[in-house]
Amino acid sequence: MAIEPHLVNPKFSLLFRETFDFNDEEYNLLLSHFEIKYLKKKEYYAKAGIICREKAYVNRGCLRSFIIDEQGHEKILSFHFEDWWVGDFDSYYSGKTATSFFQALEDCELFEISKENFTKLEKEISKLGQWYTYKMTRRALANARQIEEMKTLSLEERYTGLLKKNPQLFQRVPLQYIASYLNVEPQSLSRLRKRLVDNE
Amino acid sequence: MAIEPHLVNPKFSLLFRETFDFNDEEYNLLLSHFEIKYLKKKEYYAKAGIICREKAYVNRGCLRSFIIDEQGHEKILSFHFEDWWVGDFDSYYSGKTATSFFQALEDCELFEISKENFTKLEKEISKLGQWYTYKMTRRALANARQIEEMKTLSLEERYTGLLKKNPQLFQRVPLQYIASYLNVEPQSLSRLRKRLVDNE
Repeated sequence: MAIEPHLVNPKFSLLFRETFDFNDEEYNLLLSHFEIKYLKKKEYYAKAGIICREKAYVNRGCLRSFIIDEQGHEKILSFHFEDWWVGDFDSYYSGKTATSFFQALEDCELFEISKENFTKLEKEISKLGQWYTYKMTRRALANARQIEEMKTLSLEERYTGLLKKNPQLFQRVPLQYIASYLNVEPQSLSRLRKRLVDNE
Repeated sequence: MAIEPHLVNPKFSLLFRETFDFNDEEYNLLLSHFEIKYLKKKEYYAKAGIICREKAYVNRGCLRSFIIDEQGHEKILSFHFEDWWVGDFDSYYSGKTATSFFQALEDCELFEISKENFTKLEKEISKLGQWYTYKMTRRALANARQIEEMKTLSLEERYTGLLKKNPQLFQRVPLQYIASYLNVEPQSLSRLRKRLVDNE
């Protein structure tokens, strides 16, 4: 199904048309290589054990990514709101099987592009190479910051930092998932929230 | 001081000449924009609180990077052996002051390039843009893997994984730094190592 330009999140067109300086022709060529994918709440976009050969832009909705540890527990890696890209990038780049699951927390609208199409487009529109400079540098930095935070911040600091970055988090994501992301039991997170509210 | 090509780590020339397909002229132009920096063991390459305007290739030696948490404790982020790049990349890209320290664990030979020179070279040699595709994608993935490991692996698994990735680690890095990287007390790491040796 073709993507109608007026349905596209403004941040998507801003990135390609303004930041990367795509002209109309290039932008339309780009859009024509994406496919719309709709997910119902709780549906999976991708699962561990499969090779990831696509990446997708979150145009609307929210997903969680998680891995399952050796004890069989889900560990949340991230939440993916509008203007994020989803996919198991390790698998995408290496060709190895994916280790992460991506599940919709709301009904989602994704724009998906296959690795084959993206690679083909990179040759046709050399400006697309900037995607790596831009997105991968940002991702590397965000991940590095998360490692720093995991190493240095208390639960309370990580919780308040998360809220500041994503004020809509508690409206859109169930508490037990936020607790899993923060690596604590839901009860501990509830107690912390109560204490912070009482102290306000 | 100019860099003599025969002193350059073969991985450096491999990356630019083979992977990125630089010709002689481009490679020599690139090299001419780097400067050699020597560090004595324990000397700092960079410190928190300063804006990072350079990045450097580790041609010889080994450094540690760390941050200091609010309680004043050092937390090791990474060890940087030959063929790594060092610098506080968050500061480098954002222009904000750096949060990390980089200290030589051995006498080091670094090839440093300023952001100004790198940006200028990117315009002169468009192939240099591949650096981001290559290095930043790898870094983003390595960081993502580290987050996964911090969330799912036991101390023993993280320790054996680290050894497998860096067999020379214990020859080159003091035990207390490896313990700090793994976020445990040096005594706990010593006990773990003893137990693993006894079980062999």
